[in-house]
Amino acid sequence: MFDHCVVSKKAQLGEQVVVGVGTVIYDNVRIGDQTVIGDHCSIGTPYDGQLDDRLLEIGHSSRIRSHTVVYEGSRFREGLEVGHHALIRERTVAGKCLRLGSFCDVEGDCSFGDYVRCHSYVHVGKASTVGSFVWLYSLVTLTNDPIPPSDVERGVVLEDGVVICVGSTVLPGTRMATGAYAAAGTMVRGEVAPGVIVSGANCESTGHVATLADLETGLRHPWMRHFGSHYPEEAQEAIRKLGETIKSSRFTTETE
Amino acid sequence: MFDHCVVSKKAQLGEQVVVGVGTVIYDNVRIGDQTVIGDHCSIGTPYDGQLDDRLLEIGHSSRIRSHTVVYEGSRFREGLEVGHHALIRERTVAGKCLRLGSFCDVEGDCSFGDYVRCHSYVHVGKASTVGSFVWLYSLVTLTNDPIPPSDVERGVVLEDGVVICVGSTVLPGTRMATGAYAAAGTMVRGEVAPGVIVSGANCESTGHVATLADLETGLRHPWMRHFGSHYPEEAQEAIRKLGETIKSSRFTTETE
Amino acid sequence: MFDHCVVSKKAQLGEQVVVGVGTVIYDNVRIGDQTVIGDHCSIGTPYDGQLDDRLLEIGHSSRIRSHTVVYEGSRFREGLEVGHHALIRERTVAGKCLRLGSFCDVEGDCSFGDYVRCHSYVHVGKASTVGSFVWLYSLVTLTNDPIPPSDVERGVVLEDGVVICVGSTVLPGTRMATGAYAAAGTMVRGEVAPGVIVSGANCESTGHVATLADLETGLRHPWMRHFGSHYPEEAQEAIRKLGETIKSSRFTTETE
Repeated sequence: MFDHCVVSKKAQLGEQVVVGVGTVIYDNVRIGDQTVIGDHCSIGTPYDGQLDDRLLEIGHSSRIRSHTVVYEGSRFREGLEVGHHALIRERTVAGKCLRLGSFCDVEGDCSFGDYVRCHSYVHVGKASTVGSFVWLYSLVTLTNDPIPPSDVERGVVLEDGVVICVGSTVLPGTRMATGAYAAAGTMVRGEVAPGVIVSGANCESTGHVATLADLETGLRHPWMRHFGSHYPEEAQEAIRKLGETIKSSRFTTETE
Repeated sequence: MFDHCVVSKKAQLGEQVVVGVGTVIYDNVRIGDQTVIGDHCSIGTPYDGQLDDRLLEIGHSSRIRSHTVVYEGSRFREGLEVGHHALIRERTVAGKCLRLGSFCDVEGDCSFGDYVRCHSYVHVGKASTVGSFVWLYSLVTLTNDPIPPSDVERGVVLEDGVVICVGSTVLPGTRMATGAYAAAGTMVRGEVAPGVIVSGANCESTGHVATLADLETGLRHPWMRHFGSHYPEEAQEAIRKLGETIKSSRFTTETE
Repeated sequence: MFDHCVVSKKAQLGEQVVVGVGTVIYDNVRIGDQTVIGDHCSIGTPYDGQLDDRLLEIGHSSRIRSHTVVYEGSRFREGLEVGHHALIRERTVAGKCLRLGSFCDVEGDCSFGDYVRCHSYVHVGKASTVGSFVWLYSLVTLTNDPIPPSDVERGVVLEDGVVICVGSTVLPGTRMATGAYAAAGTMVRGEVAPGVIVSGANCESTGHVATLADLETGLRHPWMRHFGSHYPEEAQEAIRKLGETIKSSRFTTETE
């Protein structure tokens, strides 16, 4: 099983861990049972700065696809899924079942709740705080520097159930409240109220997600109505409650 | 030749196939003669779902550059050219001489005609149908989900000779007719008539490609006039006809 | 040290060069002392066209991170820093301390001055000329073809101290003068005067960088005021002068 790969003797691998061809696993790594790691990865890449804890912990039943780099000094709960060619830097902390698409760039010093899903080329800048059940589509960028270049790190906060569509940029210090939604290509900024849809270069509010529907299929937001069943049983109660919270924010959120 | 790489004994390699250092070639792979594969690739990566046909077929005279991943269960005719760090998922079907730039992400369940060319970071979502002689520039994203997240896959259709410039996003269900053209940064949506130029966040029609010229050089669209000669002899007749079709659409297409 | 990697006997490696697992170093390569190269890289990748000089020269004290590809036929002065999964093609010439983020795509035939810094997914098209102390943020694309597809290469010119924020596209033939600044998501075009800020899809001038401040911290542009100290001693005089030049352009540049 460990023929064409290089695994440090100090690394702690659980039961039935599979490691792909050419993959390197460094010292400070603990990998949970039933985890599969693809070809040509570097796992636990040494960070050449200070770290309080150098351990990279990857929960059980995870899947890391080929050519992915994960630095030491991060923690991921079970069910992590990472696409090909991704990069995750040090001091990233994630809940259960984080999914990162191919070519994602997670810069470290950031946190994710449970069941966050990112498509391809998502860039998570340092100091980002991402809640649970958040969706980030391709090419979404979470920034942090309000006056680039500078030393200031004003990370973005995305609360539970936020959806950010393809090609949107989230400007430094933005806070999107529960269930807020950014249409494709939005320059997101400021405070976005619960369940509010924003769009465009000026981040204008265009209503509440509970009014967002696909005419052809009749599917409506919040997405927990039509997509909640794709999550495991143990997440159902949280999803149902989150959907209720977002729906009810329709009548408490003032949208211009 | 096969010294520093791992090639399955079940893989079928043609004459004069070259395989780079560290590259892995899996079981269900058939590679045509004179094909060159770079370093650190994974070719025929196993897909962990159902597939009618697991064979990955790569036509002769192809060139796949380093760090590229191609899943099993796809077919490419001769002359495939892929840049570095690209990803092509299962159930992709392509005609002759597909060119994919570096960092492209082809999500599978999609088709390409002949002589399609994609620059870097092009993301082709599932259910996309791309005709022949199509150009997709850097960071172009073909989406498919009209009410994300959902199960609905409403792929885009790009007919022959379509050009989509850098940084454009093509929204779900879009259909661009023959020779339609999207300027840089367009949010493409709806039905775009033959030869029509669209641009901007609102996908406004701004004329017909036959009026598009570079003042400094005098070059004019459709591009078959000034760039057709870059294609091989056997494509010339198709290119000439396609150019004529696009030019004549100027007088049949109503552009607002 | 050179156990799990493949280093050509013709390659010239300086003192204390470290080469990562799986990395391939080709023939025409000269690497300066104290340089560290990560895992799974290809360094000096053969280019299958003509080159006046096939040597790839990487200066001392450089750091190239994993999965990066650098073609033969380029020159980098000391202190080069490259992220993971980057690509640098032939005929790239760079001054001191070039920093390229992860997933950058430098297409070759281009030049960089000293101390240029690019974040992730930056795409530098052929024929680009980039001055010194330039900052390119994530997803910035430097294009070159005014009437795509064509043979015309009209590269962009970025003078010293230019800053281009996240997600901006620089159209072919653009010239940004000393210290010019593009806000996030700008479609940069034409001639941008010294120190002028441009923004939006129409590249409108919105003032001079000397008026750009972060209210919360009080930091102001040009950035040499608050960020110059992050550069080494030997760069301080150049940075101070550049800051002065940009500040004084406030009163000589006409901004609409």
